[in-house]
Amino acid sequence: MRIGTIVCLLILFVAVLSLLYISTGDDLDSQDPLPSWNEGATKSAILDFVTNTTNQSHPDYVDPEERIATFDNDGTLWCEYPDYVQSMFMFDRVRDMAPQHPEWNSTEPFRSIISGERQASANFSVNESLQIYVATSTNLTSEEYMGLTREWLNTSCHPRFGQPYTKCVYKPMLELLRYLQAEGFKAYIVSGGDEDFVRSFSDEVYGIPPEQVIGSAFRLQFVENNSSVSVVKLPQILVVDDGQEKAKEIVQNIGQRPNLAYGNSNGDIPMLQFTTSDGRHGLGLLNHHDDPMREYAYDRGSAIGGLDSGLDMADEWGWQIVSMKEDWKEIF
Amino acid sequence: MRIGTIVCLLILFVAVLSLLYISTGDDLDSQDPLPSWNEGATKSAILDFVTNTTNQSHPDYVDPEERIATFDNDGTLWCEYPDYVQSMFMFDRVRDMAPQHPEWNSTEPFRSIISGERQASANFSVNESLQIYVATSTNLTSEEYMGLTREWLNTSCHPRFGQPYTKCVYKPMLELLRYLQAEGFKAYIVSGGDEDFVRSFSDEVYGIPPEQVIGSAFRLQFVENNSSVSVVKLPQILVVDDGQEKAKEIVQNIGQRPNLAYGNSNGDIPMLQFTTSDGRHGLGLLNHHDDPMREYAYDRGSAIGGLDSGLDMADEWGWQIVSMKEDWKEIF
Repeated sequence: MRIGTIVCLLILFVAVLSLLYISTGDDLDSQDPLPSWNEGATKSAILDFVTNTTNQSHPDYVDPEERIATFDNDGTLWCEYPDYVQSMFMFDRVRDMAPQHPEWNSTEPFRSIISGERQASANFSVNESLQIYVATSTNLTSEEYMGLTREWLNTSCHPRFGQPYTKCVYKPMLELLRYLQAEGFKAYIVSGGDEDFVRSFSDEVYGIPPEQVIGSAFRLQFVENNSSVSVVKLPQILVVDDGQEKAKEIVQNIGQRPNLAYGNSNGDIPMLQFTTSDGRHGLGLLNHHDDPMREYAYDRGSAIGGLDSGLDMADEWGWQIVSMKEDWKEIF
Repeated sequence: MRIGTIVCLLILFVAVLSLLYISTGDDLDSQDPLPSWNEGATKSAILDFVTNTTNQSHPDYVDPEERIATFDNDGTLWCEYPDYVQSMFMFDRVRDMAPQHPEWNSTEPFRSIISGERQASANFSVNESLQIYVATSTNLTSEEYMGLTREWLNTSCHPRFGQPYTKCVYKPMLELLRYLQAEGFKAYIVSGGDEDFVRSFSDEVYGIPPEQVIGSAFRLQFVENNSSVSVVKLPQILVVDDGQEKAKEIVQNIGQRPNLAYGNSNGDIPMLQFTTSDGRHGLGLLNHHDDPMREYAYDRGSAIGGLDSGLDMADEWGWQIVSMKEDWKEIF
């Protein structure tokens, strides 16, 4: 009986500990899931959206397998100023490749990258940008290309913030990703950037696996070399994943309409329209870069991340314009 | 003390129940995860593959986020004889659409479908099959198209087995999907069939959500109608997801090489090569339809699901030829 009592007391002790543990868990659950977001209409809209779509007795309830959230990358999840990160990678790669391409010294757009005359993507036409994209990112397998981008990301720094680009991601957005994932949403990146460029860091930085990254891409070639088989990126663009292409790529790759879409520029508008099209209870959000002190201020007419139609359409379509200055306690 | 003892005994009782429950769970875990598979080299190869790739101290260990398994659909997950299920859907749809297309009465390949002269996809050229595919499956949104395929699947039966096609799925394959998923693998379908055709039943039938289905597809168009936005399938084929396209689509959509690839016909060979290419420890498997009593028998030279190169290459590439007759206790 003595031993029996001791065993009973031990079990009681464990039971009490378990109860304490469970109640601590409850406390954690009731904590603010978005601590870097200031209270206000935007934060309320997000919290209401998640509360309603995950509440079985609410008319906006969405089954867990249909909970899809899509995010633009540049300017939405990480900083895109003073230039797209991928553009800086491509300019560096042109300079690295230059010794093997003596013809570039007299061929535009390469000549002026090598000479330093033009150093920002805003200085190049769309066609020139695509030429640079093709020249720096093809005739490689995805693995080879991602090896290059990872090495570059590990050794490059943002010119103003003096940190690796992968540290220039928005803290409130990371919180939002974690929150949505915890509530059963599958988060996708739908980027105008190269699919493999984003895939090379998305899991580590955002917790989004490569198969949930949709982006611009090249035609591919299946290459057989005895028992070694690989797939190589051809110098032909398959898709520039911007504007209406974003909505089409979502249908092609996901096969479902998102319930939440989040962007920051004109190229994200069709994705938001597709998500909040009438009769649906989707949530559309746009980051407004209005904080020159902590980040940058730009919108209408900006060559990078221009936001015109979004500001004009937000009211009518019911989208949230997220003021990075007012809505976010911290940026990075 | 009396009450204390009672409480202690109650807790003890609960604890013993819990232990019993846990040990029952253990028993379940140690049960055969593939009960419909006969013991033999194939089953051992699968069990060894999963054991090794999920064992952190084994050289073949694969991180959970990199565990990718790709499956063909027709002939691999469900029955493709006497004709592809999607072909039967398309033939029925041609007949349904015929009143709105009087010109089809004098235009091939439609004329002979309507007249009943040709009733199997083996009777049509590749070009004619694509014409039928385009005519029956476009100028619709994905939702509209999937509404049609679901309705058809709900009201059609397999001519020999007298059951809905969605019941003519292979039980051993469902077990394999469940087993892999339980061990952290993300299972994809990579089908030559239309992406949306397969998506319309994949979650319900296989437990594979639409975003994990890759297949043939059309070019799309973004259509804006005031506040209503949709994406429509255009009558232009974007990709016929067969042969080398399967490997390319895997790179495009998943961004990682699979660790396991499972098919049954010539069109699956590049996917298996890509998975088991040298230096990798991938597993390649091919269903061999050699059971005319319980299902069908066909391989070399079959117009549907022909398997020639697979049988020739299996030894050299280390692929498992799965005998549906010998390796499977039950088919459906």
